[in-house]
Amino acid sequence: MGADSEEKADAVRIGADPLRDFCQAIFEGVGVPREDARLFADTLVAAELRGVESHGVMRVPHYVARLRGGGVRAVAEVRVVRDQPCVAVIDGCHSLGQVLSVRAMNLAMSKAAAHGIGAVAVRNSSHFGAAAYYAMMAPPRRMIGMAMTNASPVIAPWGGTRPLIGNNPWAVAVPANEEPPVVLDMAMTVAARGWIKLAAQEGRPIPSGWAIDAEGNPTTDPVAALKGLILPVGGYKGYGMALMFELLAGALSGASVLDDVQSMWSGDGPQGLGHVFIALHVGHFTDPADFADRVDGIVRRVRSQPRAPGVERIYVPGEIEHLRMQRNLAGGIPLRASTAAALVACAAELGVPAPAALADAAERSRRGG
Amino acid sequence: MGADSEEKADAVRIGADPLRDFCQAIFEGVGVPREDARLFADTLVAAELRGVESHGVMRVPHYVARLRGGGVRAVAEVRVVRDQPCVAVIDGCHSLGQVLSVRAMNLAMSKAAAHGIGAVAVRNSSHFGAAAYYAMMAPPRRMIGMAMTNASPVIAPWGGTRPLIGNNPWAVAVPANEEPPVVLDMAMTVAARGWIKLAAQEGRPIPSGWAIDAEGNPTTDPVAALKGLILPVGGYKGYGMALMFELLAGALSGASVLDDVQSMWSGDGPQGLGHVFIALHVGHFTDPADFADRVDGIVRRVRSQPRAPGVERIYVPGEIEHLRMQRNLAGGIPLRASTAAALVACAAELGVPAPAALADAAERSRRGG
Repeated sequence: MGADSEEKADAVRIGADPLRDFCQAIFEGVGVPREDARLFADTLVAAELRGVESHGVMRVPHYVARLRGGGVRAVAEVRVVRDQPCVAVIDGCHSLGQVLSVRAMNLAMSKAAAHGIGAVAVRNSSHFGAAAYYAMMAPPRRMIGMAMTNASPVIAPWGGTRPLIGNNPWAVAVPANEEPPVVLDMAMTVAARGWIKLAAQEGRPIPSGWAIDAEGNPTTDPVAALKGLILPVGGYKGYGMALMFELLAGALSGASVLDDVQSMWSGDGPQGLGHVFIALHVGHFTDPADFADRVDGIVRRVRSQPRAPGVERIYVPGEIEHLRMQRNLAGGIPLRASTAAALVACAAELGVPAPAALADAAERSRRGG
Repeated sequence: MGADSEEKADAVRIGADPLRDFCQAIFEGVGVPREDARLFADTLVAAELRGVESHGVMRVPHYVARLRGGGVRAVAEVRVVRDQPCVAVIDGCHSLGQVLSVRAMNLAMSKAAAHGIGAVAVRNSSHFGAAAYYAMMAPPRRMIGMAMTNASPVIAPWGGTRPLIGNNPWAVAVPANEEPPVVLDMAMTVAARGWIKLAAQEGRPIPSGWAIDAEGNPTTDPVAALKGLILPVGGYKGYGMALMFELLAGALSGASVLDDVQSMWSGDGPQGLGHVFIALHVGHFTDPADFADRVDGIVRRVRSQPRAPGVERIYVPGEIEHLRMQRNLAGGIPLRASTAAALVACAAELGVPAPAALADAAERSRRGG
């Protein structure tokens, strides 16, 4: 569920619109066309709004480095290599994962609108950020959306000692009526690698049970965890799911698989990732208004269950993120001073001016405030 | 991965064919038409062959009781209430889940053969046994198969104290070339309820971490676990997945959901379950022979990874079950004497003669051997 925004003592607050504009300008500064830069920026700001900091704007400097290094092509090339009424395959030619994914999900939804279901596979893609973004494109169109991807290796096969399979996240979003959509977005590891990197960056220990070190011993040291193995959720079950998503998003799309997938954190080369997006049009199965009401009913029934001692509220998947989004839309997105500073420095290199609030926070961070 | 057959000290071995014939005769004895009885029997024998005893023939007496009690209609009624090129919805009219599921998966596959993908939802169904059976229908047709279902409540919402959501298993089967298909079949609970029932039946404790008792305390007592809560895999992640399958298999199909789903273990009424079956035709995405070879390569690469101390072999999902199936096809299916006795008693009530091997085992079991 991500680190909660409330924990950031040194946070500066910035509105979603200026933050999106700022990120867009940065991406345009490295050659991403205007519309694609806007879309790319929107995926990151959406993650920030939902409080999913690990997939938010803290990644901008690294994405910029990847674009400048040539591992990701700034100008999207969306080559539809197979196109059938319900199914398509896109060769992304190693351009931006976020842009490819939005195009692919739109294609899956147009197929679903016509035929009830659509599936689009993408190969030769790059890191697509938070999977939820693409799944969540579906509910406003009264569709159920699914997004899955492979990723560079972090999980060992059950009984193995070396990372071979990605954390291979998937997301599912289901439309409701008065309630927000129900949105699951989960990686097959107990914890996201981004959280462990964040802990390492801040010198915080990680909870036990998240990872083992390179020698196979349990560890709470995030640095040791990053050199060791992140554990799959539910042991062999999480390993099994990760492998299935490798077969679907990786093998079926024609993408790279297993340790042929390159990490976006090491080297300048393309990653060769694969994704699959599936849209189901509710109206082809049942009355969409009835369905939306049923989902409302399920959400409310779940929420009203008796709670264990100390539990203040029961949430459905995506609800915590939805509540954060409402808070952040009203009060601004809380950015860590360190993140603000990194963004401002990245922009300065490209001659892109920073919003005053971020420039101030960066200056305070530089002075060690 | 189920209890391993090797553990059954008092097992009698019986061939798949005579066991299937015997079960078929029992089901015909309670009014299931010949072809459907055969198919129903085949789903249970397939589970036995794969060593998934909890979903095997030990359930026959209970299924018979449900058929006699009227909670499940013996004569299948498969009402296709929506039929579009890629999508269909079936009202199962509370007939046999296994028969409905095979019909639904066949329909999904015929849609996928024509259009690349097919999805069929089923409502008003009954317990469908092992999900893998339906997913595994796809690989011989060069398709990827998926099966999902809701189930009577065993999981509490995360933070809740009362079971509200089923263990909602799903299965995925992916075709390979020389390797057997890769088959994941997992419930969203740490352990299958069937294993806990088996442990209770045999007076064995269950591992810690599987369940909490009615007061919320961890327990290794299977009887207390059955009265308490079975824990979801990966905590809130497993809860999230279970809820998503509730929305897909339950709400989208128009089936009963949450605690409106009736348990097959209590009462005589219909369960009102829902399922969704999805088939993806590999040939619509890529060259199916290339894909099958890629899957072989992935399986072999996973299998050849360095192993942790004490690990003899790394398996891909479904491989342990495949190896058991090969053993059981060659040497016969090992049935516990208690299971044989229960089957023989059930058959006797219906005037169905038992194979000699089972009758002998039942007699030994009766005498306390």
